[in-house]
Amino acid sequence: MKVLITGVDGYSGWPLALHLLARGHEVVGIDNFVTRKRVKEVGSWSATPIPTFAKRQVAVREIMGKELGFYRGDLQNYDFVHHVLQAEHPDAIVHLAEQRSAPYSMIDVHHAVATQVENLTGTLHILYAMKEACPDAHLVKMGTMGEYGTPNTDIPEGFFDVEFHGRKDHLPFPRQGGSWYHWSKVFDSGDVMFAAKIFNLRATDVMQGVIYGIRTPEITDDRLLTRFDFDETWGTALNRFIAQAVLGSPITPYGRGEQKRGFLALEDSMQSLRLAVEHPAAPGEYRVFNQFDASYSVNELADRVARIAGEFDLKPVIEHPADPRVEAEQHYYQPIHEHLPALGYRRTRELDEVVREIFTDLLRFRRRLEAGRHVVVPTVQWRVPDSRPLLKARAAPEAPLPTHPGSPSLDSPA
Amino acid sequence: MKVLITGVDGYSGWPLALHLLARGHEVVGIDNFVTRKRVKEVGSWSATPIPTFAKRQVAVREIMGKELGFYRGDLQNYDFVHHVLQAEHPDAIVHLAEQRSAPYSMIDVHHAVATQVENLTGTLHILYAMKEACPDAHLVKMGTMGEYGTPNTDIPEGFFDVEFHGRKDHLPFPRQGGSWYHWSKVFDSGDVMFAAKIFNLRATDVMQGVIYGIRTPEITDDRLLTRFDFDETWGTALNRFIAQAVLGSPITPYGRGEQKRGFLALEDSMQSLRLAVEHPAAPGEYRVFNQFDASYSVNELADRVARIAGEFDLKPVIEHPADPRVEAEQHYYQPIHEHLPALGYRRTRELDEVVREIFTDLLRFRRRLEAGRHVVVPTVQWRVPDSRPLLKARAAPEAPLPTHPGSPSLDSPA
Repeated sequence: MKVLITGVDGYSGWPLALHLLARGHEVVGIDNFVTRKRVKEVGSWSATPIPTFAKRQVAVREIMGKELGFYRGDLQNYDFVHHVLQAEHPDAIVHLAEQRSAPYSMIDVHHAVATQVENLTGTLHILYAMKEACPDAHLVKMGTMGEYGTPNTDIPEGFFDVEFHGRKDHLPFPRQGGSWYHWSKVFDSGDVMFAAKIFNLRATDVMQGVIYGIRTPEITDDRLLTRFDFDETWGTALNRFIAQAVLGSPITPYGRGEQKRGFLALEDSMQSLRLAVEHPAAPGEYRVFNQFDASYSVNELADRVARIAGEFDLKPVIEHPADPRVEAEQHYYQPIHEHLPALGYRRTRELDEVVREIFTDLLRFRRRLEAGRHVVVPTVQWRVPDSRPLLKARAAPEAPLPTHPGSPSLDSPA
Repeated sequence: MKVLITGVDGYSGWPLALHLLARGHEVVGIDNFVTRKRVKEVGSWSATPIPTFAKRQVAVREIMGKELGFYRGDLQNYDFVHHVLQAEHPDAIVHLAEQRSAPYSMIDVHHAVATQVENLTGTLHILYAMKEACPDAHLVKMGTMGEYGTPNTDIPEGFFDVEFHGRKDHLPFPRQGGSWYHWSKVFDSGDVMFAAKIFNLRATDVMQGVIYGIRTPEITDDRLLTRFDFDETWGTALNRFIAQAVLGSPITPYGRGEQKRGFLALEDSMQSLRLAVEHPAAPGEYRVFNQFDASYSVNELADRVARIAGEFDLKPVIEHPADPRVEAEQHYYQPIHEHLPALGYRRTRELDEVVREIFTDLLRFRRRLEAGRHVVVPTVQWRVPDSRPLLKARAAPEAPLPTHPGSPSLDSPA
């Protein structure tokens, strides 16, 4: 199949391109390199060195013997989106090109607006361009398990049977985002559901859990590495915990650390997205996949990181700073995930082994982490009365970042 | 109380200003006059002549002896919004300044994006400016009953008790918009609910039904009239039916005409908004009011218009063009509306008498309707396969529009 990946330069987009190419699919990517810029905006960088996109394409050619098509451009430009879809006529579009950080969206009003406006606009542009240029293509849209919030019931895959005042209907499950970012994904879900209906499009809305890991079987060379963000804005809690352990800092789960979320290994996320692509929705069908493998509390993650750190002669302590987020610290969490297993999904990676693999990689890139010691502490408060945003764009260190011997040059704005 | 009305130049904003001033409240308005421009964009105008805003302010002073404060500006500009809230410190903000036409949002991708982006951005700007400048103010946000769609159950006021897999929660009722416009209001509801929680704001989200009527008791002079839009994009079905009857054209309910919606007289909408303003939500409280009085099917409206037209020696026939919208033509419709009656809401106007009143006014302005005969027919198709938008901006007639003797000059872009 021919697959268009928006956000192909990103954390998930890049390994997805490799994964699909390795399985014989044709892949074309789109990116505007905004993640590289925005990570710099908060004074951080990827712990893994990321070559320019042109060098990434060369590496794919040399190492895998495959061609990765690419368009540099912005989904905010409708003519660009329409042009690419018209020129490529993909069978599937995996739409990952969105502002993906909840803390970034909470910095101030302008970051809130930018997150919601850009995410909504990009998705609307894709939906209309599909209608015009490739109405039979299948949209696989990246959402988040965070769209559901933490209701005191099981969480179905998108829809559930409602009985209210003695009458019944099958309705979308209520969404309750926990940041402007999460709400932007909720809004996208509404637009994708509506577009599938009025434009008769095929659509799969992926409620993805938190992804962990840097490696997939296709990443056989440092030139093929994907990003590893470890700062408070762009890194996940697990990423920060491992970075903290490597740096000899305390591991800092927010609050009581009993918040639970769904998690998935990077490799199994690629498996899931491929299964969605290879089993398209029907015309006019809007389906929702809860895409995660297992749920963990933040404390469980911190404990595992601390335990596995010991295998690397690291002895981190665990501290609990106040939770800057607006979230229930103790809650029921039981999302259902049956659709992907029904398509053949099977877990291939275990959390412990992936954490070990991350430690091994980060110890190689330890000097890049050392230079970023200042970015692993939370500074954005999400609620009043701490009404002023506390995050300041930190200057990057003046000395050039260390690069692992033999690896290509650093993240550049491509 | 001091009330800030965004969209004060609009159909509801204007009579709300008069209504609140007459009851002793202090009123300040904001507008950017975009409705005047956008009605022109589709080749139409208000059947009632609308003076410039400066003349409206003079009329308020001369006729009511009241001062109506005003800021011309755009909610898309955060600094403007923050400045006004800081300078005025209102007790309540009634936020009406949004793109309000479902058909307008369905014209093409650019109208879809503009609708969602502008509505979301304006609301986010107000929420952040409230947090910064007047955190104790009460936001009364105009939404629409259309956010709920037409589920096969009763429709609660925002929230309902859910039981799923044997566990219970009190959750937002699922929303299912029927146009990009309706979804923009759904998205606003999410943002307002979230902001109330994290910024501890007072918020009332008004799910308003379709409003009908031109007059309130304060409109004692033609200089105080509000808009009456009758074209396919900006006019409601009822408005178009009456305009068609006055023009001697067939009345055209879409499809089978069995679609049901909630309706409310303009005067009773003003009463409802005032009740919300005078009984503010608590800090951190997000409450939802279903603001309508009675439900009617489109056929019931058409039949009433045809019957009352007879009283004015008009003999319209009723025709049923295919429904250009994507909506269930036959459906259950039973929304609950208990919150406003609990605050003292009582119906003051009956549909029949308001329809009679509209006929009386429109016959006075008949020549302004005659000039717009071409805008009362639907041309925008909402779904594929009619994939190209059919609406073209029609040129306004070249001769100047007739003005009722003694009434001020026509809608100008203020």
